[in-house]
Parts: sequence; C-alpha cells; structure tokens
Amino acid sequence: MQTVTVNLGQRSYPIELGEGLLSRVGELMKAQGIGGRVGIVSNPPVADLYAEELRESLREAGYETALVLIPEGEAHKNTASLGSIYDALVEHRFDRSATLIALGGGVIGDITGFAAATFLRGVGYVQIPTTLLAQVDASVGGKTAVNHDQGKNLIGAFHQPRLVVIDMKTLRTLPEREFAAGMAEVIKHAVIQDAGYFGFLEEEMDALARMEAAAVEEAVAVSCRIKAAVVEQDEREEDRRAILNFGHTIGHALEAFTGYERFLHGEAVAIGMIQAAALSAGQGLLSAAELERIETLVRRAGLPWRIPDDIALEDLVAGMALDKKSHAGKIKFVLCEGIGSTRFQWFSATEIVQELASRPRPAPKR
Amino acid sequence: MQTVTVNLGQRSYPIELGEGLLSRVGELMKAQGIGGRVGIVSNPPVADLYAEELRESLREAGYETALVLIPEGEAHKNTASLGSIYDALVEHRFDRSATLIALGGGVIGDITGFAAATFLRGVGYVQIPTTLLAQVDASVGGKTAVNHDQGKNLIGAFHQPRLVVIDMKTLRTLPEREFAAGMAEVIKHAVIQDAGYFGFLEEEMDALARMEAAAVEEAVAVSCRIKAAVVEQDEREEDRRAILNFGHTIGHALEAFTGYERFLHGEAVAIGMIQAAALSAGQGLLSAAELERIETLVRRAGLPWRIPDDIALEDLVAGMALDKKSHAGKIKFVLCEGIGSTRFQWFSATEIVQELASRPRPAPKR
Repeated sequence: MQTVTVNLGQRSYPIELGEGLLSRVGELMKAQGIGGRVGIVSNPPVADLYAEELRESLREAGYETALVLIPEGEAHKNTASLGSIYDALVEHRFDRSATLIALGGGVIGDITGFAAATFLRGVGYVQIPTTLLAQVDASVGGKTAVNHDQGKNLIGAFHQPRLVVIDMKTLRTLPEREFAAGMAEVIKHAVIQDAGYFGFLEEEMDALARMEAAAVEEAVAVSCRIKAAVVEQDEREEDRRAILNFGHTIGHALEAFTGYERFLHGEAVAIGMIQAAALSAGQGLLSAAELERIETLVRRAGLPWRIPDDIALEDLVAGMALDKKSHAGKIKFVLCEGIGSTRFQWFSATEIVQELASRPRPAPKR
Repeated sequence: MQTVTVNLGQRSYPIELGEGLLSRVGELMKAQGIGGRVGIVSNPPVADLYAEELRESLREAGYETALVLIPEGEAHKNTASLGSIYDALVEHRFDRSATLIALGGGVIGDITGFAAATFLRGVGYVQIPTTLLAQVDASVGGKTAVNHDQGKNLIGAFHQPRLVVIDMKTLRTLPEREFAAGMAEVIKHAVIQDAGYFGFLEEEMDALARMEAAAVEEAVAVSCRIKAAVVEQDEREEDRRAILNFGHTIGHALEAFTGYERFLHGEAVAIGMIQAAALSAGQGLLSAAELERIETLVRRAGLPWRIPDDIALEDLVAGMALDKKSHAGKIKFVLCEGIGSTRFQWFSATEIVQELASRPRPAPKR
C-alpha cells in the first residue's frame, strides 16, 4: 500500500493505493476519524462485483450502511439521479454526521460528490474509484458535478473527499476499452507536466496495455501525485488548474456532439489531446517530432486519435461556445510548449476551424 | 447610507443599508469590482415593483442583464424552480464571470444563492432583500438552500454573496403580516445575544410596529451586526452559529406540519421562540419575569405566540426527527440563559412533549 497526500490545508486528504484495499475500507475510514452512518452510492454492475465486500468491511468497523443504486452511464449523471440519491438519504434519515461513499467510476464519483456537497449543506464523502479514469482523474481535486441537458458538468461544486481508496484489483474487471480510456488522462498528465514520466510511459506502454500490475500501480500513483501538485496550487480552478483541461475542450465538444454515446470520456480526450497538440504545433510551440511522439503513445494505448470523418469540425466548434471555459465568444485552449509544459491561448471558433482544417488528417497506420 | 461588513477573510462582503439604494446597485457593484453579465432572479410581484429601477441602474453602470422569474412562495423553493434558473442561465449563455442578483425575500435569496453556488461550480451573487426577514436573516452568512419534499432546506450550500444592498423603501410595500414575521428574527437576535438591544426593542416596539423609518433602519443594522458577529466565529455552523437556530426547531416543525401554508417562517419562529424560552424556564435558565418579557415583546410585534390548539405537540415533535440538527434520535435545542445569552441542550422527543405539555398554555390576552 502507498499513500499520496493531497495537501489542501484543512481539506487535505490521503489517497490510499494498493492491492486488496476494498476489504480494509472500514479500517481506513476509522483511521481518518470518520463516524456516522454511511450511504454507498453505486450502479448495479459495480455493486454486483464489490458492494458486498465493501459493506462487510464497513460492518466489521462498526458502520451502519445503506446502498443507493443509480443506473449505469453518463446519461444518468443528471438531476434525476441526484434526486433519487437525496430521496434515499432522506428516507434513511441521514443526518449531518453521515458520510457518502462513491463506489464506481467517474459518473458515480461526480454525482456522489455533488450529493455530498449539497445534502444538508455538505456532508463528507469517500471515493472508491473502480476505473482507471476515475482513479487518476476524479480522485484528486474535489470537482463534483451533474450534467445539464445542454452541457456537461454545468451544475456542480468543489467539495474535497475525506479519503480516497484505490484497490488495484478493481481494474481487473474493467473492460479493455475503459482501461484504455483511463490511459488518456495518464498520458495527459505526462504531456502537460512531466517529460520524464512521458518517457516512462513510452517505455512501459506495452506492459501498461497488458494491465501489468506493477506498471499500472506506478502510473496511477505518479498521475495522482502530478494532479495533486496542480490542484494544490489552485484548488478552485482560478488559473493554473485549468492546464488539466488539456485535450478537454475538443473532447467535451465531441462527447456532447455525439450524445455521450459514441465515445468514452477518455477516448474523446485522446482525440482532443491530439488536436490540441496539433494546434500547439501550428503555433510553433511543439516540434513535428514531439507531436508524433504524442500521437504514437496515444495510439499504442489503444485510443482513437483523430476526429472521425463523419463529424464536421465546424459543428464541433459550434458546440464549444457552451463550454464552461468559453468567454466572450473566445475559447480558451491549453497548448503544450514542448512535452511537459503548457500555456493558455484564446481562439475564436473561426481560428480553430482554420488551424485544424488546414492540417492533413493522418492516414490510419494500423 | 451605512455599511455593515461581514468579515470572513477572502469571502468578506459589505451590506449597504439605506433609503433609495435600489437606483445605486450598479454603482455599488462596480465598486466591488463585479464584472460580467447579470442574471436577476425574482418573482412576479416583486419584479413588478422593483425590477425596472434595478435594471436601469445596472444598465447605467454598463451591465447586461437578464431577468428570470420564478413563482412566488415557499412551495416553489424547490428543485423545479432551481432547474428553471439553470435553464435560463444556460439559455442566455452565462459563463463563469456571470453574477446573479436575488431580488426578493428569503425564498428568492436562498434559491438564487444555491443556483449561484452550483452553476458552473460557483458564480458570484448579490442579494437585494426586499423583506424585513430576508434583510436581517438571509442577508448575513451565505446559507443557501432549496426544500426537499420531506423537509425544509435539506439541499443547500454555504456560499457567501459578494454584496448585499438593503433599500429601506422596499419595506413600505411589504404587507404588515410579513413585516411582523421579520420582527421575529429581530427579537431573536436580541434574546440570544444582546440584552441592551432587547431593551431598545421594548422601548421602540410601537415605532417599529408602525414601520417608522429611523427605528426600523437602526434595528436592521443592529441585527445584521449581531448575526455577522456570530457567523464570523463559525461560518459553516460547526458549533456556535447554531445559536441562531433559537426558536427554529419547533418553528421548522410547525411550518412542515402545516405544509408551509399556515404560518410565515417568522410566525413559526415566534411560536418556536416562546416554546424554547419555556423549555429554558423549565430548566431554571430563565426567570418567569424574563419569559414574560419575551412573550410580551413577541405579542407587541403582532406575532403569534402559542401552538394552536388543533396541533398536537406529539405530532409536531415527531416531525423534528428530520430536522438537520437532530442526531441519534435526540434533538438539539438552543435555550436562553437569561436574555442575551444561550446554551445548547439535547432532548428526546418524549422529554420535549413532557416539558411543554406540563406548561399551562397562556390564555389569549387580546
């Protein structure tokens, strides 16, 4: 077991990382001084696999638990699911000493965190992310949200968890496609912040793609540390934290345009990263060789890397106006300045289309 | 014009108080460095009276505005109204630089504040409370919320406004009954914190009940100062701030039991204060003379002071189990220890019924 600490003053919390930690959640919560009753929020497939072991661990530590299930999938990260969580908490007479546990991927983490942020004006929560994406992304930084009909994560709050427990074994039940999607955020951390880590990923990508335990645990730990360092500098995304949106501007637009059905979040981000890297190269910030290294690593991770032919750039860019990062008609992009460093740049919709359309789409190489 | 400052570090804000300030809101916002577009949330009767003057002031200061109306009344302080605010903000393409203005009473203030707390993970807001209750209560401390079917304010957040503007003239269109309801919170501030202020209210109650401008402005300013001092010690109600719940435990239960239709919030609090004072007297914390002074002042303010005969104590107390302040079956009461001081005490439902039922209900004296 290793611990990554997210240092945010009074809101600091540990991420406990290792094999088989699910059976130790009760004990880890006690060590954090967490009391009260516990509401576990999950979805049916994840609950089928892990809820019983988790509840047993909580029972042993003396916690009373209730299980709240919401339907699986991004389409259910909405106010209706949120309402069903509130209903269950009220029905079980949860008070301010209660703690919620998010058992699942990013959707479960985001909605559970938002429910915790707003139930009785805020109760504590613990995250048990069961997907690679949630482990390296949502587990650090306290961003919680639900989607609005018109856009992703338009309703939310910053609310830090009290504890994050990552049991590496949960990755072994993760579909390959979902695992690859998580690798997109791992690669992102390297591109925006750490050229050495990028080199490690290039070296270990075959082992990672085979989900070899040692390599994966190392990547999760390093990614959590990188994200923690960024969040510690700017908890509420007033400036620096926005570098984590590298690849997300086009990524979000792709997801929204395809109704959150065609791409997993990480897949959309993978495509978005290549586009952002291409924009960076267009501005002379990234060499052709570096752009190719990024593309190659994304492809070796089993991720899509280009905007499909049936989606017009113009349509995508129109969707970006609703992105939370848009301002006065301009869209803020995170560009990379070489691998391991970033800068912000604002583009109008027209500029984006011109920049990206002028770049020949790479022919599929495999 | 006078200013009461709520000192909460980076979240500090001024309450500007005076006659005719509505026409100066734009200028006051500029002075606070507030930029971006402005969404005014109100209800039809209040908007009819004041929205045009407010928008004119904002226009003069260069702000672009949108008006969002929600239906009047506590019954509409729910997730449906909240959803309609989100929809309007999305429709108008509001971004993170946007500011909401709550123009109205407590319902408008609470729901607008919660929308601001959660839209795009938090935008700024300004309160323009137009009822006495909202001026002396909701304008200090950043409690925002909506109701759940099963209980009041079960969903909410702490989110401080950037600025509060109190135009005393808005009280002149307030129905007498609503004005009296606001006086309940004014009396509460004196009872829990300031015996000298209680004496001032006894002296000025006739002038206050006639809504004489000088007396009312003084009471609003002193009440805001008292509440600010309490909130500054305990912003998130971890301990001390809970003294502001004096009268609210039974008050909330009365409101819930009668479907939020029979009593105004302040009326329910008035009854709740007398009951809490009676509980205090029963514990030997308050003399019979002090209890009578409190009852008399409440009655002179034109407020109800006893639980109506058709409502059984047992039924009321059963409703308290859902109160946010309940814990492990016990209900936390704020008692007064003499006028101007408080202490907390936990009671079981049975104990409350015994204590209060044993006290002869006063015969109506007027």
